[in-house]
Amino acid sequence: MVVPRLIERKRDGGALTGDEWRELIAAYTRNQVPDYQMAAMAMAIFFRGLEPEELSALTDAMLGSGDRLHFAGETRPRIDKHSTGGVGDKTSLLLAPMLAACGVLVPMMSGRGLGHTGGTLDKLEAIPGFTTGLSLAATEAQVRSLGAAMIGQTAEIAPADGKIYALRDVTATVESIPLISASIMSKKLAEGLNGLVLDVKIGSGAFLPEPERALALANTMIALGAARGCPTVALITAMDRPLGIACGNALEVIESIAGLRGEGPADLMELTFALGVEMLLLAGLDTEAVAARRRLEQTIVSGRALELFAKMVAAQGGDASTIEHPERLARAPIQRDVLAQRDGVVTQVEPRALGRAIIDLGGGRRVATDKVLPDVGLEVPVKPGQRVAKGDRLAVVHARAAEDAARAVISVQAAISIGEGAVAPLPLISWRVTSAGAKPYGEE
Amino acid sequence: MVVPRLIERKRDGGALTGDEWRELIAAYTRNQVPDYQMAAMAMAIFFRGLEPEELSALTDAMLGSGDRLHFAGETRPRIDKHSTGGVGDKTSLLLAPMLAACGVLVPMMSGRGLGHTGGTLDKLEAIPGFTTGLSLAATEAQVRSLGAAMIGQTAEIAPADGKIYALRDVTATVESIPLISASIMSKKLAEGLNGLVLDVKIGSGAFLPEPERALALANTMIALGAARGCPTVALITAMDRPLGIACGNALEVIESIAGLRGEGPADLMELTFALGVEMLLLAGLDTEAVAARRRLEQTIVSGRALELFAKMVAAQGGDASTIEHPERLARAPIQRDVLAQRDGVVTQVEPRALGRAIIDLGGGRRVATDKVLPDVGLEVPVKPGQRVAKGDRLAVVHARAAEDAARAVISVQAAISIGEGAVAPLPLISWRVTSAGAKPYGEE
Repeated sequence: MVVPRLIERKRDGGALTGDEWRELIAAYTRNQVPDYQMAAMAMAIFFRGLEPEELSALTDAMLGSGDRLHFAGETRPRIDKHSTGGVGDKTSLLLAPMLAACGVLVPMMSGRGLGHTGGTLDKLEAIPGFTTGLSLAATEAQVRSLGAAMIGQTAEIAPADGKIYALRDVTATVESIPLISASIMSKKLAEGLNGLVLDVKIGSGAFLPEPERALALANTMIALGAARGCPTVALITAMDRPLGIACGNALEVIESIAGLRGEGPADLMELTFALGVEMLLLAGLDTEAVAARRRLEQTIVSGRALELFAKMVAAQGGDASTIEHPERLARAPIQRDVLAQRDGVVTQVEPRALGRAIIDLGGGRRVATDKVLPDVGLEVPVKPGQRVAKGDRLAVVHARAAEDAARAVISVQAAISIGEGAVAPLPLISWRVTSAGAKPYGEE
Repeated sequence: MVVPRLIERKRDGGALTGDEWRELIAAYTRNQVPDYQMAAMAMAIFFRGLEPEELSALTDAMLGSGDRLHFAGETRPRIDKHSTGGVGDKTSLLLAPMLAACGVLVPMMSGRGLGHTGGTLDKLEAIPGFTTGLSLAATEAQVRSLGAAMIGQTAEIAPADGKIYALRDVTATVESIPLISASIMSKKLAEGLNGLVLDVKIGSGAFLPEPERALALANTMIALGAARGCPTVALITAMDRPLGIACGNALEVIESIAGLRGEGPADLMELTFALGVEMLLLAGLDTEAVAARRRLEQTIVSGRALELFAKMVAAQGGDASTIEHPERLARAPIQRDVLAQRDGVVTQVEPRALGRAIIDLGGGRRVATDKVLPDVGLEVPVKPGQRVAKGDRLAVVHARAAEDAARAVISVQAAISIGEGAVAPLPLISWRVTSAGAKPYGEE
């Protein structure tokens, strides 16, 4: 294997063989291929893409670089959900206990905040004591006993992906559909799943804002999953505004608990149910969406999802009393209202700008080593299309210091536009994508 | 400066400012930007190119990263020639003494063999004792006293280029017109020239085989030179077959000495005179090609060019007696003829394959740390279009060991095709390119 010749071939639009991908990834994982060659390769892939066979080989090589979860003898279906990332998206916190309450196993491996988007791990760690660093064996045991565990990517899972992802982050090679697909699927396939639901975001706050690119990403991942015995379904969903009201770590945990109590914001609950329905259909527990939705609603009405969430928190070292008493979660010392400066219609609630304001408050990371504050963040109750009067509250800033709050108020004011005329926000869910193709959501 | 954002902008087709290029190159030279980020940037440049202002800033930043030759108070014109590289191209060895004999100063900074092509430094070092590692001060002194010096790129000259070039070599980012241009011109401009002649090769043995790409490279470098007070002219010349007969280090020195004695192969001498004419015109010593050519021929007829070459060799520590007695240069122990297997017309003499055969004999490098043998190589007297009979000698292999020779005979046999019908080799010189544009060579 002469690495520069492999880079050159990809650069010029050719394809590498399966053996070449395996050898390259194995050598890179063992630090026998330097980062600068993998960086050049990643950029060549950004421009040239990968053939389906290459993507399969790359994904398998990344998956095979590490260990995976084992569920030998387990007959219950194992289903996970993955989102491409957004602002205010806390559906994972609701879905893990709701599905577990239905008898589905959910071995959920999540990420940290990335760019302007929040991360499930950061949110969970807003619960005092909660640890996301379980071993694979402990994760397997908890999934078998409680039905769900929520952990971070360990060094044992797809270490090649860990290395490549860190490199892509600092070489501007993140936004590549084949590289995103291989990264997500190599980790998800390591979870030993029977099915996977993808939430692929579109709109200004998404990593890939254009629907065409999101659909291409969905199709790519669906094909990868299907060929590996992991049926995969994707919903294409809106990230042209935040999901729900709460944006920020503890604030999102509080809203998730409200959701599990049946008191969540409408858009959050709608998307949570839609994703949960797909998980139940993949699990084979229901064959019709209506019945699946009823089953999910029942986990909330009965209190079983909330109860399971509390058990999961306790099992992972967290203070479960906060589930019953969310007011015990960290609360920032300063709250400042953001008020409408004029009458009109909310024309935009720009998630990217709001996400950056949260980072500026300390609730996200600028660099990977930044510590994240649990208590800061935003509450943004307004949605595009909503009519407001001058002086109405558009948002609440939660901050550690007055000067942070003042900066955030200005940023949030700029992120929420008020104007006149028709506003056309994206539908909450626009497409449902399966191996059979993409259909507008809601059409049979 | 946030390097991933700069890479991203270039990746997406945007431009960096002059300040951004200066800061990036300065930080990279100080090892404050890691190789993996520069590798990703180089690949992004490969795909996106550089705006003219970006290329200027990059070239100046690379030039400014080091020292340069100083010729304060010197009124004689300083002119150099640079070739994009080929097989059998030893024109530099003839031109330096010929131009010096005309009163032109030639501060010539050359390279080593690269890929399948030979390198002037490797050839000169086939002369026992010859050193190409002069300091800048010693180079300046020798150029002033003898009229010419032939040295390698020192650590003092454009260190940024040295680093970037080494990185491009192992990341498949060599074949980029803006990166090639910035690399060549940052070094050439450091020579303190009044004019530069470029020999841009085309054909199967050239780095950029297509005439369109060669013309684009020539135009790019001409514009860079013109904007920096270094008028630049390019000839587009043939590398679909070797230049001259000798290919290999000592063999090429011997052929160069023959050339300086007026006994060189026709194609070598034709190109040498053509390049020398451009150098004299740029120097302002002649205004007409015919007069310039006569002046160059006179340096050979008078023996002054050969005499100056011997003085240069002596000044740089070499055994000058080899100039009078080239048979004293290292000669490989084994010579093997390559014979025509059939009657016919030579349809191809493929330089890339011949260059690789020389590397295989030990006359070139596979990796940068390889030692190069001075004595091995090929003599290839046949040219495309020439009629041969079965059993005619096509080439002579010079080797260290019988098995090396046997392998080379097979390679050379494969590199020289014999067939029937019309053969259309490239014209030796096809275009002359100046700031005013490109014209077919020979048209006024």
